[in-house]
Amino acid sequence: MSLADRNQHIAPFYVMDLLARAKQLEAEGRDIVHLEIGEPDFSAPQPVVEAMRDALAQGITHYTPALGLPELRAAIADFYQRRYGVDVPAAQVAVTPGASGALQLICGALINAGDRVLMADPGYPCNRHFVRLFGGREWSVPVGPESRYQLTAAEIRAVIKGASAAELAQIKAVFVASPSNPTGTLLSQGELADIHALCQERGWWLVVDEIYNGLIYQVQEHTAAGYGLDDESRTAVVNSFSKYFGMTGLRLGWCVLPNTLCNAVERQAQNLFLSPSTPAQYGALQAFSGETAAILESRRQAFEARRDYLLPAIRELGFDVPVEPQGAFYLYADSTAFGEDSFALCEMLLDQAGVALTPGLDFGEHRNRQHLRFAYTREIPVLEEAVARLRRYL
Amino acid sequence: MSLADRNQHIAPFYVMDLLARAKQLEAEGRDIVHLEIGEPDFSAPQPVVEAMRDALAQGITHYTPALGLPELRAAIADFYQRRYGVDVPAAQVAVTPGASGALQLICGALINAGDRVLMADPGYPCNRHFVRLFGGREWSVPVGPESRYQLTAAEIRAVIKGASAAELAQIKAVFVASPSNPTGTLLSQGELADIHALCQERGWWLVVDEIYNGLIYQVQEHTAAGYGLDDESRTAVVNSFSKYFGMTGLRLGWCVLPNTLCNAVERQAQNLFLSPSTPAQYGALQAFSGETAAILESRRQAFEARRDYLLPAIRELGFDVPVEPQGAFYLYADSTAFGEDSFALCEMLLDQAGVALTPGLDFGEHRNRQHLRFAYTREIPVLEEAVARLRRYL
Repeated sequence: MSLADRNQHIAPFYVMDLLARAKQLEAEGRDIVHLEIGEPDFSAPQPVVEAMRDALAQGITHYTPALGLPELRAAIADFYQRRYGVDVPAAQVAVTPGASGALQLICGALINAGDRVLMADPGYPCNRHFVRLFGGREWSVPVGPESRYQLTAAEIRAVIKGASAAELAQIKAVFVASPSNPTGTLLSQGELADIHALCQERGWWLVVDEIYNGLIYQVQEHTAAGYGLDDESRTAVVNSFSKYFGMTGLRLGWCVLPNTLCNAVERQAQNLFLSPSTPAQYGALQAFSGETAAILESRRQAFEARRDYLLPAIRELGFDVPVEPQGAFYLYADSTAFGEDSFALCEMLLDQAGVALTPGLDFGEHRNRQHLRFAYTREIPVLEEAVARLRRYL
Repeated sequence: MSLADRNQHIAPFYVMDLLARAKQLEAEGRDIVHLEIGEPDFSAPQPVVEAMRDALAQGITHYTPALGLPELRAAIADFYQRRYGVDVPAAQVAVTPGASGALQLICGALINAGDRVLMADPGYPCNRHFVRLFGGREWSVPVGPESRYQLTAAEIRAVIKGASAAELAQIKAVFVASPSNPTGTLLSQGELADIHALCQERGWWLVVDEIYNGLIYQVQEHTAAGYGLDDESRTAVVNSFSKYFGMTGLRLGWCVLPNTLCNAVERQAQNLFLSPSTPAQYGALQAFSGETAAILESRRQAFEARRDYLLPAIRELGFDVPVEPQGAFYLYADSTAFGEDSFALCEMLLDQAGVALTPGLDFGEHRNRQHLRFAYTREIPVLEEAVARLRRYL
């Protein structure tokens, strides 16, 4: 078929095989509890939905500027001021087709063929593909409970120590995610500042994925957007309307960028995406209202209650979660109590217990057969049913 | 700033400078007639808007599968059967974030670093960037009135004749667009079949941009989707809900692909886009209804009437349009009667006559300073006003 070589390096997600199997079981009449899904069960908040419906009723369906409606960029800038006390000029906010669009544009503007990007393993599986898209390659750093499954400055220093000068010269950027998918753990403000300082020292870019910000439990939320104001900061912050704001299928995200990077991202966006979805942008204008904020806060509390139920429950079942996750809606569990092959375990739990989970294979290579991910994106009674089923089977 | 080298090759569109100037003039109270915009003035059709509003009211805002809702893929397949009598399996239809998303995914699945892609100059300016994104390079073939501004099999044969064996070995694909932006001209069914046969002979892929299909005047419409059914056909057909269906800002397109390519595109879409916009997909389910078809046919007639007014009017002004455009909503006019610098002419016409046009510079390099593009995306009285202003000034 003479396809491009890169296709060989883009494996389908393993969870897709499980999903296909789950569908088959459901078609046969079996009831499956879905804890594999990385998507909130809530729909977009009502004020967002109403704003979209109003814009549509007014016939507002045309293109917007490539980096989004000026009033939405201003609203996002204002959000940083109100929520974090951080001053972000609206001109340095780029609205994108999802955080995926932001990650692609940032990589497109930064990565040359041969460049390497440091990132945590386990981590968000698509990141390596965004880098590879442009001829770069991920430099996966195994992380574990010692660093709360986060890439820290200490771990980056260990990489530097073990690398040759030629290898170091290839490094272009560091990607971190706080809270992280699949682990739900955070970098503290101090840890993030240390990484930024180290990147500054080395002349590397720092790309911070904050798409689960907002879904944070018991600890203080922070942002790297404060670093991103001038070109010399070399910091890009990615966020999304999908997770905290519950707007997954509307495909809208944003990033905060230094001016020169923002200009490069704009030119790429003009060519590659034309513009983000117009109805979604009109919806997003209501994402920061007081009414929406109240809805989102009650949802955040619901996620926290789910975590507070599910975490001790799966620990009691025998799964090891050595670090308490304080964000997102994931528990990344060590499953070695049930054998050394978490993918086989996922298959068995689906078939025998009717519970769908995501295998560690989808998040990297480091101890990936010893882990699986629970997403607490279902209501507590559903989580209770899942735990009861797992208890009976295990 | 250590950005990627590719940024140097992505120039902003020249028309953006003109738009900024137009905005400034409008802020000063000047009235500007906008004939530079490649977007229908119509909003999304009412049945599409209503379907989106209904889906939103039901809280349908979650992700869909990466290649789109199964029922939408089936509806698109059915559309090929009803409109063209062409049998397209729904499994070979990929729904994408705009035709832009389709072009990116197809290039990502096909193009290796060093590959070349034959394409017409003038042509859609983003195509070269989709190819370059993956380390490929466009091979621009100058086209003119002799071939109705289209890349034909005869012209491709001339390229083959003039190329070295090493150069020929780099060619991976041929891109054609019918109707074409910026010229509005079509390839006949026979011409397209000849190109396909030649690609088959050489083992090249054929990518056919049909995003202006539907907006066709006085001639028979056709599609290359009939070639695309098996892997050996090596044909990809790209279409969009933006132009004929009037859904620009909703960011939805599709492509029809051989199975193996479709699988590669699906894996890339899972990683790069997650899924197309959910509300837009629910709207698109109504894009093929009888009620929508009647609206779209009356719009098509309106575009035809605009063309029938504007084409003789600008010819009378002294612009040379040697080939009658039979599709899209563009007139690509030779402006040498008014000097040898169409960009300067565009600037002058904006400043002095208050009419915004797109300079040929945005569409390639071949005789680009001798051409400019009129988009008849405004109502006839607006076109009349533009012509009156141009007449006074010229």
